[in-house]
Amino acid sequence: MVRYVYDFAEGGREMAGLLGGKGANLAEMTRMGLPVPPGFVISTEACRAYLATGAEPEGLAAEVARHLAAVEESAGRTLGRPDDPLLLSVRSGARFSMPGMMETILNVGLTDGSVHGLARVSGSERFAWDSYRRLLQMFGATVMGVPASRFEEALGALKERRGARDDLGLDAEDLAGLAGVFKDLIRRETGEEFPQDPAEQLRRAVLAVFESWNGERARLYRRREHIPDDLGTAVTVQRMVFGNLGADSGSGVAFTRDPATGRPGVYGDYLPDAQGEDVVSGIRNAVPLADLERLDATSYGRLLEIMETLERHYRDLCDIEFTVERGELWMLQTRVGKRTAEAAFAIADALVREGLIDRREALARVGGEGLARLMFPRFDADRTGEPLAHGVPASPGAAVGAAVFDSAEAARRAAAGERVVLVRQETNPDDLPGMVAAQAVLTSRGGKTSHAAVVARGMGKVCVCGAEELVVDTAARRFTAPDGTVVEEGRVVSVDGSSGAVYLGAAPLVPSEVMRRLEGGVDGAAEAAEEGGLVAAVTRALEQADSVRRLEVRANADTPEDAARARRFGAQGIGLCRTEHMFLGERRQLVERMILACTPGDREQALDALLPLQTDDFAGILEAMDGLPVTIRLLDPPLHEFLPDRVELSVRVATAEARGERPEQRDLELLAAVDRMHEENPMMGLRGVRLGLAVPGLVAMQVRAVASAVVARVRAGGDPRAEIMVPLVGDVEELRLVKAEVERVLAEVGEESGVTVDCPVGTMIELPRAALTAGPIAEEAAFFSFGTNDLTQTTWGFSRDDVEAEFFPGYIDRGVFAASPFETLDEEGVGRLVRIAVEEGRRARPDLQIGVCGEHGGDPASVHFFHAAGLDYVSCSPFRVPVARLEAGRAALSHGHGGHGGDGDGKDADGRDADGGGGGGGR
Amino acid sequence: MVRYVYDFAEGGREMAGLLGGKGANLAEMTRMGLPVPPGFVISTEACRAYLATGAEPEGLAAEVARHLAAVEESAGRTLGRPDDPLLLSVRSGARFSMPGMMETILNVGLTDGSVHGLARVSGSERFAWDSYRRLLQMFGATVMGVPASRFEEALGALKERRGARDDLGLDAEDLAGLAGVFKDLIRRETGEEFPQDPAEQLRRAVLAVFESWNGERARLYRRREHIPDDLGTAVTVQRMVFGNLGADSGSGVAFTRDPATGRPGVYGDYLPDAQGEDVVSGIRNAVPLADLERLDATSYGRLLEIMETLERHYRDLCDIEFTVERGELWMLQTRVGKRTAEAAFAIADALVREGLIDRREALARVGGEGLARLMFPRFDADRTGEPLAHGVPASPGAAVGAAVFDSAEAARRAAAGERVVLVRQETNPDDLPGMVAAQAVLTSRGGKTSHAAVVARGMGKVCVCGAEELVVDTAARRFTAPDGTVVEEGRVVSVDGSSGAVYLGAAPLVPSEVMRRLEGGVDGAAEAAEEGGLVAAVTRALEQADSVRRLEVRANADTPEDAARARRFGAQGIGLCRTEHMFLGERRQLVERMILACTPGDREQALDALLPLQTDDFAGILEAMDGLPVTIRLLDPPLHEFLPDRVELSVRVATAEARGERPEQRDLELLAAVDRMHEENPMMGLRGVRLGLAVPGLVAMQVRAVASAVVARVRAGGDPRAEIMVPLVGDVEELRLVKAEVERVLAEVGEESGVTVDCPVGTMIELPRAALTAGPIAEEAAFFSFGTNDLTQTTWGFSRDDVEAEFFPGYIDRGVFAASPFETLDEEGVGRLVRIAVEEGRRARPDLQIGVCGEHGGDPASVHFFHAAGLDYVSCSPFRVPVARLEAGRAALSHGHGGHGGDGDGKDADGRDADGGGGGGGR
Repeated sequence: MVRYVYDFAEGGREMAGLLGGKGANLAEMTRMGLPVPPGFVISTEACRAYLATGAEPEGLAAEVARHLAAVEESAGRTLGRPDDPLLLSVRSGARFSMPGMMETILNVGLTDGSVHGLARVSGSERFAWDSYRRLLQMFGATVMGVPASRFEEALGALKERRGARDDLGLDAEDLAGLAGVFKDLIRRETGEEFPQDPAEQLRRAVLAVFESWNGERARLYRRREHIPDDLGTAVTVQRMVFGNLGADSGSGVAFTRDPATGRPGVYGDYLPDAQGEDVVSGIRNAVPLADLERLDATSYGRLLEIMETLERHYRDLCDIEFTVERGELWMLQTRVGKRTAEAAFAIADALVREGLIDRREALARVGGEGLARLMFPRFDADRTGEPLAHGVPASPGAAVGAAVFDSAEAARRAAAGERVVLVRQETNPDDLPGMVAAQAVLTSRGGKTSHAAVVARGMGKVCVCGAEELVVDTAARRFTAPDGTVVEEGRVVSVDGSSGAVYLGAAPLVPSEVMRRLEGGVDGAAEAAEEGGLVAAVTRALEQADSVRRLEVRANADTPEDAARARRFGAQGIGLCRTEHMFLGERRQLVERMILACTPGDREQALDALLPLQTDDFAGILEAMDGLPVTIRLLDPPLHEFLPDRVELSVRVATAEARGERPEQRDLELLAAVDRMHEENPMMGLRGVRLGLAVPGLVAMQVRAVASAVVARVRAGGDPRAEIMVPLVGDVEELRLVKAEVERVLAEVGEESGVTVDCPVGTMIELPRAALTAGPIAEEAAFFSFGTNDLTQTTWGFSRDDVEAEFFPGYIDRGVFAASPFETLDEEGVGRLVRIAVEEGRRARPDLQIGVCGEHGGDPASVHFFHAAGLDYVSCSPFRVPVARLEAGRAALSHGHGGHGGDGDGKDADGRDADGGGGGGGR
Repeated sequence: MVRYVYDFAEGGREMAGLLGGKGANLAEMTRMGLPVPPGFVISTEACRAYLATGAEPEGLAAEVARHLAAVEESAGRTLGRPDDPLLLSVRSGARFSMPGMMETILNVGLTDGSVHGLARVSGSERFAWDSYRRLLQMFGATVMGVPASRFEEALGALKERRGARDDLGLDAEDLAGLAGVFKDLIRRETGEEFPQDPAEQLRRAVLAVFESWNGERARLYRRREHIPDDLGTAVTVQRMVFGNLGADSGSGVAFTRDPATGRPGVYGDYLPDAQGEDVVSGIRNAVPLADLERLDATSYGRLLEIMETLERHYRDLCDIEFTVERGELWMLQTRVGKRTAEAAFAIADALVREGLIDRREALARVGGEGLARLMFPRFDADRTGEPLAHGVPASPGAAVGAAVFDSAEAARRAAAGERVVLVRQETNPDDLPGMVAAQAVLTSRGGKTSHAAVVARGMGKVCVCGAEELVVDTAARRFTAPDGTVVEEGRVVSVDGSSGAVYLGAAPLVPSEVMRRLEGGVDGAAEAAEEGGLVAAVTRALEQADSVRRLEVRANADTPEDAARARRFGAQGIGLCRTEHMFLGERRQLVERMILACTPGDREQALDALLPLQTDDFAGILEAMDGLPVTIRLLDPPLHEFLPDRVELSVRVATAEARGERPEQRDLELLAAVDRMHEENPMMGLRGVRLGLAVPGLVAMQVRAVASAVVARVRAGGDPRAEIMVPLVGDVEELRLVKAEVERVLAEVGEESGVTVDCPVGTMIELPRAALTAGPIAEEAAFFSFGTNDLTQTTWGFSRDDVEAEFFPGYIDRGVFAASPFETLDEEGVGRLVRIAVEEGRRARPDLQIGVCGEHGGDPASVHFFHAAGLDYVSCSPFRVPVARLEAGRAALSHGHGGHGGDGDGKDADGRDADGGGGGGGR
């Protein structure tokens, strides 16, 4: 015989799966001897049985009756007794919090008869009728299916007749009349009477809560939050207690520490003569919790005791709801409280120092996204005005500077010492110098993975993109806000990359202490850990992560400066050194010469001119990363991306001709080349390894530059560890051909210099076919590095730049995505390819080194996946290195040390999310 | 003890894996009692052992000695005996023919001593010295590693000194001197003497043949032909016989039937006083084989007997090499002969009628590519002149017409009854009317899967693309050939889509009888089968294929005309009805209106105007396919593809402005829209299901049109079987959302009309992610249709239009591809996704219908793969339907009836390729 109902005294917090979060925590408090109104929980199993068959599970009614009898006995009253009714609350409560998604019915047990008994016992006619009309309203809508708006309309009409501003303007007589109106409404809409049998009320209320699990809203919510559809909800049935029975009653919420800063102390709100709903809804102004001491010292003292007991018991910040009913304190809910990032680190560290948890547990309670937020300066929230506009918060932090509208102006002003914000409709590689020079980037187009967003995150620059309310006129060098404000070049604006807000003028800033210490390098940070406070808490968490993680953390860096910074942040090498950035700026002319070369000799000359420049680039990076691996990727983008824009050129040439002028010869040559090389889909064009195989001398030049840099570093007494990575391989044969050329050049340089140059040659895995043929490819590759950006694009068949802004928001709304697959790895599709490649690559070559160098390498949930999939390292932008270190440590704790194929969802075993908030039941 | 050597008398043709093709067939003829010079075969196993260890396998020398003794005994002479030497040929012979890839050494056994014996015995000093210098040359190059060019240079120098035009101008003394020069050369180059021990010559020759297996050329050839690297070659050692011993000697090649037409009779060439090499190399003019009767009636009679014996024994066309040595006939090689497509069908049919093979075997011997060639008219090869240029033969057949340079001119002239050839640099969707009007399409850019090629193949039009030698000047309406010929508009050209040749003027045409009969429909074809000849042979092969195949064959067709034609070709439904073609032409204005619509009302109006047009489209197609399934795909391409070109518009607007004119208002509006909707990578942009979810009303309009067409057909007494297919699905949720809308509209139309409209809703599987999540997707899909074109693009990460012309030829050259993966399915990568999707889709929904509608559906090798992978149907362009029917039948024979996961390589169990040629050993 299956058992469906559990008395609070029979459960505990470990039973959240069966009793729901709310029920499990009520049971826990009951077990602890805290004052919880008696009640019981109908399990999720009963819900699942009901939803599967559509019928009330056999035996459920009898079980409920038995448990109800126990509640009646403890209360000394029976459900709905006319002269002194026991009333019940019937609430949903699932394994995972789904706030507002399912139903609650209060005051179950009231009838036409017992409403009078309640009036007598409570001494308040108004209270009794208000309670009754609330039951009618909730029951009518939730259980009997009357549109909720009909009740609202009737209430509204009554208030209008009485000239009442709110419910308090209605007296007992009004509410009694309203109860009659509601009953008529129910009869008219359903052809049925409101049930006057309290047991039937209870039965139907329970089933209605079950059914709310499958409501449209709830399903959509679950889809978005990736909560399985087959869990079901539990139903908590509990004696009603009333905080609205006069001045000696009230309701409140409390936190055992400050959820904003983590500092210890009494935090919360109290509302005299009110129910819990009233506190949450903010109808009336609550008073600080400390005021309860003055109002009811006994209850206050008892509450403080309970709070301490709860925090020691839960070993964490607790979030509490309570009611005082005529001087008697009742606990209505508790759960592990949500908190800010700052509080998460501070509380975890404090609890360790208080001996409540160990460092491993503390690490599980903080998260990478929180750490990232702490690394940026922020605006002082109390002192900013109204924002001019809002965009997509694409790269966090706060920045202030003069608005500038192109790269040259940004560079010019920055060189003169001015702080600037680069404002563009959207950015492209030509804006890079401006982005480097700017404090922040603001665009009116593009989503979180637009060029601006991706590059800004890579640089650790603040970015707000897709601020569509702004009309950016780059030609006129100004933008216009929706309120008509025109911001001309040079005017100071403030950009909040964490919230997406854009302000006029300089909003006051608070610098990040955490960043200052992390930038000081790992050693400085260790020293800082002695000092206490937030910085110490963060440092200790990182130390703990480093001591347990299996994943190495490398950085994506293309310059010696980035490499050095990454190293200060704790990077253990460079996982991706892109070489295309080395083809821009002043070198663009050489690259153009190479592309336009008519003869092999011309091309060779251009390549020869590039060689020493590339050699210097590599030498600098190898020096900054001395002793650590530096993975250098051969040139990846299609060559035409280094030429001017086709539309612009065409227009320039045509315009000159229309004016009867002769177009510039260079423009004509460039246009011919651009036309010839034009690709409909450059992302899928002649790039990566294809380029290396198609353009004679290109691979050789790059490899020679790497090898020469290695030789130079060895001669300077360094320990260079260059690795050469071939991009966009789809078939082992491509890799074999390029590798042969690489090895030929390495041997040549070795022979010429007398220094043995030994660079492992590996490949990106960024095409589905590479993952699907990883076995053969591994036979030729010393290492794999997943390029999860491109792998996501090709697996889904969408181009990041083109589609993200256009349809991702809709897809997230409709539950197709939980998050952009460019931010958090799509485990089902892309992740499956990763697992295939890891398994088959390692089978073919057991010592294969495997990492990831896509942006996912710095995403918390994705880091957990990569740990579980068995990768050796993740590589991410320098600023995400501390985040990745932290999450790699957390992953090792929650998934174990090996690649055991865990779920990698960035949540620990309790479903706590990676940001250190979350917790038990829903409110 | 492993055995490595087999006497000819011990082997047979079934042992080709061990003895190589040549050796196995020599053994077979020996076993049949035919006159084969005695010899033995050193097995591929010996080769593998040698290549694995680098040492001569243990026991091999003793085995060779034993078998050599047997040959000596039968010859009554010993190897290299000074006064009458036994000489040997040492030849390679692998499992699969690798013509010219490996080594042969003749006259092994000659030495400074035995050359005089040979002169005496043969009665010819010159013959003896020529034989010796040939041995020195072959042995020196192949075994001892002297560059072959050094021997050629020495020979050339001697001829020059003697004023000889060819070898025949050198006398015995010259050749004796040359032998001395060659020996000196060997000594100088290698520091070693040419070995005078015949046994050592033999041993080293055998090892050299083994080593030639791993020569660079041989490895590349195998990579291209997908022949495994670990097979190894066998070595055939055989007594030399000489056809160059005078007028009573000679060599010849013969076919047991005409390999061009399949007609019975004596076909071949004979060259008196010559070795086999001389016949093949064509140094002297051979005489027709029939002349041998006059020269040597005995040998001729014996040869005809042997040919008949061989054909009955092999039950197939045999290709024979023979030598007459002083009146004695010797068989030197036989194998199943290569033949034209016409001969393949005719011979297979004839052999059935002669009772030698059954119809199943006959089916295995013909192929789809051959059938395709027979369906096109061809030029009379004897009467065409020199071509103007060559391009890529992209769509077979022969066409003659006036060159025209744009779509409008093509349509105008065609309407006036003129035949035209559309000449463009490359084509795009706007050229469709011109392509429809033209006999052929000729472009100067793009590869086999360029727009021109793909669309032309789909229409069954002749196409030569990428004729880069031609300079096409569309503005001047002319093109220029490499020889300076300028072809102005209106001048007649001839285009050969099978060879890629382009001729000036009207080359004489031979129409296709096969096509005429197939176009008459299946019934007409059945009738035709009674008449005998090629048409009958083709018809019987198709009937046989239809009777055994498991795969259904559908067609890709977008118009009622195409549908009707496909049905005549035997299509069992439409597997892909694209709807984007219905948005072109005159309707483009409505589509533009829809795209530019500023309000939902405007858009709705445009959609409403499209609705009746779409309804008519669908009704026509459903009528043509009455009673058969018609799979209609919702709109797939990005909407901006229906707008004008961005560069063109930008230039037009800028030019007008530069001239101080006001640009057209419509151009400005269009440009704004085109700029706004511009995508960097439209192939991966807002298209397919994403478009359907993003543009309100679009899916509803299309579904309403389908449903209305179904209703109209039902009312007209028809049996419409429309299916609705959702393109570019990557996640089941996308399909679920669109399906809900489809079902809503179907129900609406059903309710409005009173006719139940029941259209299965399925999805394309054309993204890696769709294949990887096929299980969940199958729960929402009634059918899967693999879009292998897009699946290939995304799996490999290359865009067909962009990369094929640029790097595919190089990739095929270097062995990365055996064929373009857009022509023949890439089984390792794309095929793996297909298998995953089939397996997991069927597991989730056992009755899931699965087909393919990419171009691969009409490719022979791919059809075999789809059969083996367990698909239900293939769908291809109407003109490929007979090809697919034939190959589906062949696949069922060679892979069995189920999807057992065979290799699907389009070859039968004997390695015969799908074109009906191929066969045993290499020459």
